[in-house]
Amino acid sequence: MTTVQEKALAISKQMHGKFETHSKVPVNSMADLSVAYTPGVAAVCTEIAKNPESVYEYTSKRNLVAVITDGSAVLGLGNIGPEAAIPVMEGKAILFKQFANVDAIPLSINTQDPDELVKHIAALAPSFGGINLEDISAPRCFEIEKRLQEILDIPVFHDDQHGTAIVVLAALYNALKVAGKSIESAKVVINGGGAAGLAIADMLLAAGVSDLKIVDKIGILSEDDTSLPPHHLAMAKRTNKTKQKGTLEDAVKGADVFIGVSAPGVLKPEWVKTMAEKSIIFAMANPTPEIFPDEAKAAGAYIVGTGRSDYPNQINNVLAFPGIFRGALDARAKNITLAMQLAAAKGLANIITPEKLSVDCILPNAFEPNVAKVVAESVKNAAKL
Amino acid sequence: MTTVQEKALAISKQMHGKFETHSKVPVNSMADLSVAYTPGVAAVCTEIAKNPESVYEYTSKRNLVAVITDGSAVLGLGNIGPEAAIPVMEGKAILFKQFANVDAIPLSINTQDPDELVKHIAALAPSFGGINLEDISAPRCFEIEKRLQEILDIPVFHDDQHGTAIVVLAALYNALKVAGKSIESAKVVINGGGAAGLAIADMLLAAGVSDLKIVDKIGILSEDDTSLPPHHLAMAKRTNKTKQKGTLEDAVKGADVFIGVSAPGVLKPEWVKTMAEKSIIFAMANPTPEIFPDEAKAAGAYIVGTGRSDYPNQINNVLAFPGIFRGALDARAKNITLAMQLAAAKGLANIITPEKLSVDCILPNAFEPNVAKVVAESVKNAAKL
Repeated sequence: MTTVQEKALAISKQMHGKFETHSKVPVNSMADLSVAYTPGVAAVCTEIAKNPESVYEYTSKRNLVAVITDGSAVLGLGNIGPEAAIPVMEGKAILFKQFANVDAIPLSINTQDPDELVKHIAALAPSFGGINLEDISAPRCFEIEKRLQEILDIPVFHDDQHGTAIVVLAALYNALKVAGKSIESAKVVINGGGAAGLAIADMLLAAGVSDLKIVDKIGILSEDDTSLPPHHLAMAKRTNKTKQKGTLEDAVKGADVFIGVSAPGVLKPEWVKTMAEKSIIFAMANPTPEIFPDEAKAAGAYIVGTGRSDYPNQINNVLAFPGIFRGALDARAKNITLAMQLAAAKGLANIITPEKLSVDCILPNAFEPNVAKVVAESVKNAAKL
Repeated sequence: MTTVQEKALAISKQMHGKFETHSKVPVNSMADLSVAYTPGVAAVCTEIAKNPESVYEYTSKRNLVAVITDGSAVLGLGNIGPEAAIPVMEGKAILFKQFANVDAIPLSINTQDPDELVKHIAALAPSFGGINLEDISAPRCFEIEKRLQEILDIPVFHDDQHGTAIVVLAALYNALKVAGKSIESAKVVINGGGAAGLAIADMLLAAGVSDLKIVDKIGILSEDDTSLPPHHLAMAKRTNKTKQKGTLEDAVKGADVFIGVSAPGVLKPEWVKTMAEKSIIFAMANPTPEIFPDEAKAAGAYIVGTGRSDYPNQINNVLAFPGIFRGALDARAKNITLAMQLAAAKGLANIITPEKLSVDCILPNAFEPNVAKVVAESVKNAAKL
């Protein structure tokens, strides 16, 4: 066990979790009590009953996000169930608060049936201004998010998909700038056809990538392969125009960009050597990336990003989700559109000024001031369009 | 609109609700982040997956209560729906924190179908150490609570029923002491056959009251009346041994105790005059009681309590629910048994020392130190039996 893991266990045990609730109003006297609770509260209830929209003025709904999981795909640990997923939901909840002053509640739901999950989550909507889905396995997550967003008039956002995709696109914008390449002509390979990989593909297509291939365990996704599950077949039709077949090794030959959301060590240095000049590698398997930055650089890679904080160019969801919800809540958006997500990626990329931009600096550090604020502004402005 | 109502509206609008979330761990650096979130959090998840009971050690579950409503019976306002009920749930949540350091989450559920409600609430159980049901209409609330407690291995407690009953019983213990009467021989009338009235009846029967009548809009509940709905018929069979029929006026003749959980002004002073000597009146309709204390006293009442903070003997749920959940959580109880509830009432009553006990002092003030602590200890000890 690493030191970090030992620390995480120790602090979780000492504090009994990471999350608590607070009052925003004083409750120190009977007079306070009569304002915060009965009889005063009746006036607030009556006002909302008369004017339903005022729930956003008079209650925590406007700033409250549910961080919801069924425990079916927790980090890289797999289907460990709702209770064992709680520490991740708590962690996410406190990051929402820390980075964007969004109040967030960790909720683990005791079913993995998609229909039931949709019903349970939809039933919670009155209390919340937004729903952040978390660690729900693919392909179930696609349908669950889609159906919830159709039912609800508050944003529903599966961060493992879209949060990741937004940060990857921001990193890609800046990496391509440094490498002097254009997004339209770059050859991009995504390794991993799970929730994150497919969401990244969606995002890159929307951002103008035209040469895109997705590689999953069976090899390059191609629409000729009728054995593909529906969600892979649909994405195969939108990518891999040449209907190339083959392995990851085949796919990366001549590629400008490798994006890994897959497994430790799957990108061999000798394959990196076959990539285009000034190649860009985002190796995001965590904690052990698809290839370590020093190996990749030794094999000729120009820019390397990972999910780790101990190497340059950390591609970290925390750069996106707090600001995205801050912006969506502030705009009182009913959903988080692709336009809002693209705006978030652009805003995030633009935090790195031209003077700062380099092979080792394509994204801000999560603790740089204004990251969430800039992302929020970008999202809010795009929501108004 | 009263000043208190104006203040409640103003503060709710200014603060946008009364409830927020906080982190219990530092999140100020990448090092903090790696402990609070990935990669450190994976070790905590893995530990819980291996040893499910450790969820109580490593997460907020052990101290987290859901304050849940469907908005079907909010205060005296009726069925105003889940959104308009949020201010009450928020208020309750902050009182849990303030009085007993219980973290509590306000949740409004978007259905009033009992089956759906049971399913939705049960699905939330992994995250919570207890469920506080709130403002759910009778008789639905009886079945909903019962079914949830059967399904779940965490306490489910409908405060409008049992919280009220516990505080009433505590008040009654002390009032009877002051009046020199015994609970076994006291003639008690409860006016109001709703959730609170029936729960009070349950509690008083368990505490030894033998002469008990319940009066609802149609008059005294009697088992001879086959037109009664099932929950009223069941209670009629356990009370009113003489099968008396009649009105509230008839019921209170010669009664030692009147307990009102009904409507403003329904107890006439001339009826109070017909009660037994040293009569006890708990007039808990709020904000306007069944009879005002000065009127009741003028008509001969010996001890009068209300739900109001501006008269002596406030009978206020906040005296019970924070300590009850504190005790149940600390004992890791799977439910809140009648024995635990009786213990809470006794503990609460005993906070008033014999020297302090008087016609105008039968209950502590909510802000007296140790109220929640004493209730919690009583509940915890009873849970262990």
